[in-house]
Amino acid sequence: MIRSRGYAARRAKARLEPFSFERREPAPHDVVLQIEYCGVCHSDIHQVNNDWGGSEFPMVPGHEIVGNVTRTGPEVKKFAPGDRAAIGCMVDSCRSCSSCLDGEEQYCENGPVFTYSSPDKHSGGFTYGGYSDCIVADEAFVVKVPEKLDLASAAPLLCAGITTYSPMRRWHVGAGCTMGVVGLGGLGHMAVKFGCAFGAQVAVFTTSAWKAREAQRLGAHEAVLSSDGAAMAAQAGRFDFIIDTVSAPHDIHALLTLLRRDGVLVLVGLPPDPAPVAAFDLIGRRRSLAGSVIGGIRETQEMLDYCGTHGITCDIEMTPIQKINEAYARTVKGDVKFRFVIDMASLGEP
Amino acid sequence: MIRSRGYAARRAKARLEPFSFERREPAPHDVVLQIEYCGVCHSDIHQVNNDWGGSEFPMVPGHEIVGNVTRTGPEVKKFAPGDRAAIGCMVDSCRSCSSCLDGEEQYCENGPVFTYSSPDKHSGGFTYGGYSDCIVADEAFVVKVPEKLDLASAAPLLCAGITTYSPMRRWHVGAGCTMGVVGLGGLGHMAVKFGCAFGAQVAVFTTSAWKAREAQRLGAHEAVLSSDGAAMAAQAGRFDFIIDTVSAPHDIHALLTLLRRDGVLVLVGLPPDPAPVAAFDLIGRRRSLAGSVIGGIRETQEMLDYCGTHGITCDIEMTPIQKINEAYARTVKGDVKFRFVIDMASLGEP
Repeated sequence: MIRSRGYAARRAKARLEPFSFERREPAPHDVVLQIEYCGVCHSDIHQVNNDWGGSEFPMVPGHEIVGNVTRTGPEVKKFAPGDRAAIGCMVDSCRSCSSCLDGEEQYCENGPVFTYSSPDKHSGGFTYGGYSDCIVADEAFVVKVPEKLDLASAAPLLCAGITTYSPMRRWHVGAGCTMGVVGLGGLGHMAVKFGCAFGAQVAVFTTSAWKAREAQRLGAHEAVLSSDGAAMAAQAGRFDFIIDTVSAPHDIHALLTLLRRDGVLVLVGLPPDPAPVAAFDLIGRRRSLAGSVIGGIRETQEMLDYCGTHGITCDIEMTPIQKINEAYARTVKGDVKFRFVIDMASLGEP
Repeated sequence: MIRSRGYAARRAKARLEPFSFERREPAPHDVVLQIEYCGVCHSDIHQVNNDWGGSEFPMVPGHEIVGNVTRTGPEVKKFAPGDRAAIGCMVDSCRSCSSCLDGEEQYCENGPVFTYSSPDKHSGGFTYGGYSDCIVADEAFVVKVPEKLDLASAAPLLCAGITTYSPMRRWHVGAGCTMGVVGLGGLGHMAVKFGCAFGAQVAVFTTSAWKAREAQRLGAHEAVLSSDGAAMAAQAGRFDFIIDTVSAPHDIHALLTLLRRDGVLVLVGLPPDPAPVAAFDLIGRRRSLAGSVIGGIRETQEMLDYCGTHGITCDIEMTPIQKINEAYARTVKGDVKFRFVIDMASLGEP
């Protein structure tokens, strides 16, 4: 076994603390990754808090993982020691259901094996995530990081990036398309970058004046304060596609009215409670309300390659792992531009 | 002016009573239709009751209108006296917005002119519908009824038919597709007929044992009592497309769970209040919740031609107009197989 160090929550809502544990020796198709950086996703916090139920403790969070391959199993084809590689939200799936066969492992009908807090068929316990010094995973769930990308600011692409890229591709966001982005956090700021890169006309809806300014700095063509009724009314019926990244309770009716005929509002955040939806809002313009979660492995690689070609990375604030609890508190307040990334070299520091 | 007779509600929730009024003389592009039959749509009752607001009285309901052309304006190209013709839910639209230019007049951004209770630019009053002996409309909003179709049982195609046909075409229902139909009334029974004709595997979800039996008589491959939790659970994750025709409050969560990955639940009924929708139900399988209303004029003609080719009509119960209030009461109870149609010849009877 490989002795590993990381940070874990010992129980729901606990502060993260240093934690020692073991990773498996690499099986024939496994790669061992030395983790250089790991992004801090808001869903890490939800899971530490057991907001969605099903959390397993001790929990080592982290699913925006980048690093270098240090060892490979004898059957590994895609990777060699020294390669830059990344792991996102999944480390395995059933590989036999129709979703897996379609390359949409995130919708595995038997449930994907998530990178942390998921049953681990190798250990018999639960998976441990990326707030740690290394990770072992089947190469089928490991992707390559283009050399052109800065490794630290590429880390959040593995969740914030693919979660926005995938629905934008599925619903054909591109030139001539009017796109709205609701919420300007880790996901929202990536949606703005992809929307601009794809040639769409991008408007950001935010409750915060400083985020409205940031939106335009990031390239958005417009920024609208969603608390401003007149400004919202002026946007009614304009959008082909809106990506809603907000996980707090909010007004879906107000967002649906922004859509034009045949427009789609895609939820990628996870508000805890059901929201009221009026049939009139959908029927009157044949609108759709949809949801989407991360992306498949093939599409994750496609997204990373696209980012490599177009020089797209996340705007990050680096943190040593010793300050992870402070990073959590600031993330909850929305006080981060726009994603914390843990510098895993700090693990070795006192 | 053309002196007309019909039945009207004088105020919200009033019983329908005989009513005399005037139609305009045909303008250059108008046709005059002698109405032979008019279907009784549940939305007629909602509008008589002003359930959705905006009802205008006296109201002559009726938007499933079939009959014969008796006169035409000098510029009319499509029709000649003696032609069988039909009018649905709209008699005009702005004809210049992007929806109208796309042939989707039902989504006219300036609001279509509905067949009744809509501002009438000709009279300065409000439009009067098909519970009457004749109607005058621009030929652009009048469609042809194939000779092969029985005129009376074709009437409900103008609303119940196109309202189900249009979303089934838009979301590509066809061979290899699993389709659910929620509610077996005027709309639901047409959805079953179209689903079978398009080659889909059709299951009906109903709260009524006799409707479950009727569903199979109509050709549905399965019928499920939606009150039977075990039967519903057995259908989870199976459907590519579900059309929900129910206007009463009901459980959207239970229907979303029936959808497979990328499945779509399309609302065509209009429940009065917003329904709670959970992001988890959408995100977990990239499902969509959408809405759709009737269809454009071009598609309405396409639907009628399809029905002519495939011998599809509605299952109807004929009623004299003197019994319209009894027909309303039975429609509200769901006690009709599956649509009342008024025999307008009865207007001349004592």
